Amino acid sequence: MALLVMKFGGTSVASIKHMENVAARVRQEKQAGNEVLVVVSAMGDETDRLVSLAEEVQDQALDTRRELDVLLSTGEQVSIALVAMVLLKNGIAAKSFTGGQVAIRTDAVPNRSRILEVDADKLRVELAKGVVPVVAGFQGIDEAGTITTLGRGGSDTTAVALAARLDASECRIYTDVEGVFTTDPRIVESARCLEQISFEEMLELASLGSKVLHTRAVELAGKSQVPLRVLSSFNDAPGTLITREEDLTMEAPLISGIAFTKNEAKLTLLGVPDLPGIASTILGPISAANIEVDMIVQNVSADLSTDFTFTLSREDYDEAATILKQVAATMGAREVTGDSSIAKLSIVGVGMRSHAGVASKMFEVLAAESINIQMISTSEIAISVVIDEKYLELAARALHSEFKLAESTA
Amino acid sequence: MALLVMKFGGTSVASIKHMENVAARVRQEKQAGNEVLVVVSAMGDETDRLVSLAEEVQDQALDTRRELDVLLSTGEQVSIALVAMVLLKNGIAAKSFTGGQVAIRTDAVPNRSRILEVDADKLRVELAKGVVPVVAGFQGIDEAGTITTLGRGGSDTTAVALAARLDASECRIYTDVEGVFTTDPRIVESARCLEQISFEEMLELASLGSKVLHTRAVELAGKSQVPLRVLSSFNDAPGTLITREEDLTMEAPLISGIAFTKNEAKLTLLGVPDLPGIASTILGPISAANIEVDMIVQNVSADLSTDFTFTLSREDYDEAATILKQVAATMGAREVTGDSSIAKLSIVGVGMRSHAGVASKMFEVLAAESINIQMISTSEIAISVVIDEKYLELAARALHSEFKLAESTA
Repeated sequence: MALLVMKFGGTSVASIKHMENVAARVRQEKQAGNEVLVVVSAMGDETDRLVSLAEEVQDQALDTRRELDVLLSTGEQVSIALVAMVLLKNGIAAKSFTGGQVAIRTDAVPNRSRILEVDADKLRVELAKGVVPVVAGFQGIDEAGTITTLGRGGSDTTAVALAARLDASECRIYTDVEGVFTTDPRIVESARCLEQISFEEMLELASLGSKVLHTRAVELAGKSQVPLRVLSSFNDAPGTLITREEDLTMEAPLISGIAFTKNEAKLTLLGVPDLPGIASTILGPISAANIEVDMIVQNVSADLSTDFTFTLSREDYDEAATILKQVAATMGAREVTGDSSIAKLSIVGVGMRSHAGVASKMFEVLAAESINIQMISTSEIAISVVIDEKYLELAARALHSEFKLAESTA
Repeated sequence: MALLVMKFGGTSVASIKHMENVAARVRQEKQAGNEVLVVVSAMGDETDRLVSLAEEVQDQALDTRRELDVLLSTGEQVSIALVAMVLLKNGIAAKSFTGGQVAIRTDAVPNRSRILEVDADKLRVELAKGVVPVVAGFQGIDEAGTITTLGRGGSDTTAVALAARLDASECRIYTDVEGVFTTDPRIVESARCLEQISFEEMLELASLGSKVLHTRAVELAGKSQVPLRVLSSFNDAPGTLITREEDLTMEAPLISGIAFTKNEAKLTLLGVPDLPGIASTILGPISAANIEVDMIVQNVSADLSTDFTFTLSREDYDEAATILKQVAATMGAREVTGDSSIAKLSIVGVGMRSHAGVASKMFEVLAAESINIQMISTSEIAISVVIDEKYLELAARALHSEFKLAESTA
């Protein structure tokens, strides 16, 4: 008998009617002889409603993070109660549990706690009785018994943590998309839903802008070797299985997907004295202003100076440019230049490891379309380039076609 | 330094703006040197919203009581988080606690649990640090850690239980009325807000239809000798202090208040064989149908038969009449009669104990107005009569005037 952890996001439990659909899926798995544990998020836009109540109190300077967690955790508590009721109504033995009730122990950092341990005994007892435990995602308690929440992607993380602790055969994340696509189908019509992908590739895709799953949940699944499946709760397609590279049932394709993010900007400091420590001298004040930096490229220089470029979210561009001009003045750099209409595009694939020439093929494709590459950065299974934003769609389609991503490798 | 327990009902925490008002009251008491503990209900009609979600699941036969408690308890949890935030914003150290977090232990009866014990240590630690604990009313946990709720009047009961356990000097129930009135001000214009009243009188008034406080909270306060004050959260009037008879600072008036309920009906079984056990023979089937009976009157009979009359809620009249006709047939009673347009009116006062003639004065007043009394029932501090509904206003005004209830005795 296999144990399945089934996690349903906000859109999948948005109403009682949606919950009936959840019950149908649970019944199907129970009838197939599986044990089932359900994890749920807050209904639809309930979290937004709660956040706006908190915002009405209005005081940025105030530390109300402890109370914010007490408030937000009610969203998932409403869901577990109602989903358990709907399961009961459908003749399925079920019981709801808050994060605290199944001892999802976290550190004491409010609003973005990390799970330390899970006491699975209570859940094992219920599963052994044939009961479907319905557990609140996103929440836990710290050592003092204070309610905590896990931050973005929290419910997925809860599901993976429970699946790992209970040795589940699969952790299924039901969402409003069909799975992980080779690229954004809104941009490239021929984008295809992947059948399988490795944890490593998914991590690169997620962190590079394909926001189907939060990086944190994928990391934890990879670390605990829990097969993860992303699938739609609105149809019966099998979705995408995210698993260990060695468990993929087909040979890894050259590349698996193309990720991209618009809304990017870049800033360059020209003629920086090429001395140890300049990176931190430049980025220290940026980071102190709570601005997140993405790609960083520094070129070797012919003279004793170098050029230093980084990308960041477009909304932080003006503030960062102001800071950078002050930094340039104090360190004697020649000039600050920037561009706030760029995009980042990445190709990801474990196949790159064993196949040379992926990078040069990518550059050839872009050159054939006369797309200038402004920055390049690489990891073992990903190559990222920065290009002018207006070429993004063209680049994505050309690469998707050239690497034959529309064709299944199965 | 005195400890005050301040309980705010749903209308008093209906919005963030209302909660600012709560903060102002708390600050006032803190500045006066008091320790303060706050108990809150769910915001405005939040409980109704949650109940209607549960009703959407629609299945009367289904036992979803455990999950209903998980659902309903979120209403108060939202309130404690927001009220704590608003207190913090107003510079008042505060911390929210769910029923479970301060170990409000109840029995395992869902939806209408009774409080067994309260672990006050956690609260004492916070109070000693100058922190205002904001505790969720209406909820607790049973021995298994399951969330329970206390049923109607639950938040008041939570406040009184905490006040008793912490030896508070006063438990204040802030609500949307000014206090306990001599009678319903919508009927009798000269009705006056009482300054003081004894626990016993309040119990009679509450159970007789003045629904300011739930009987359960008054009972617990009386048992634990916690002075209870009902007051408006919308003005600065002192409200009504409910305390021990011996602590009343003025001589008890003859009567303190007039309570009444419309929407009553009565059923009479005429010519019942006067034998032991007939009351249970008659009322057994009524109670088995979950119909609540209020006044019961049985008259001594001249021959070997008797007449048996009881009152009940008007909405149960038809069902009870049908049941009673069957009972009459099996037990050989002569006839079933009934009236579904009656009202019950009661005068309440501890002063009755030491003053003879209250009952006869009441009957005289009603006779002077040509109001026929259909049933009479008495307790040590209350006299209740059933009259035709159409005379209710007239009777209430006449008695209110005759017993000089509009005049303060202070």
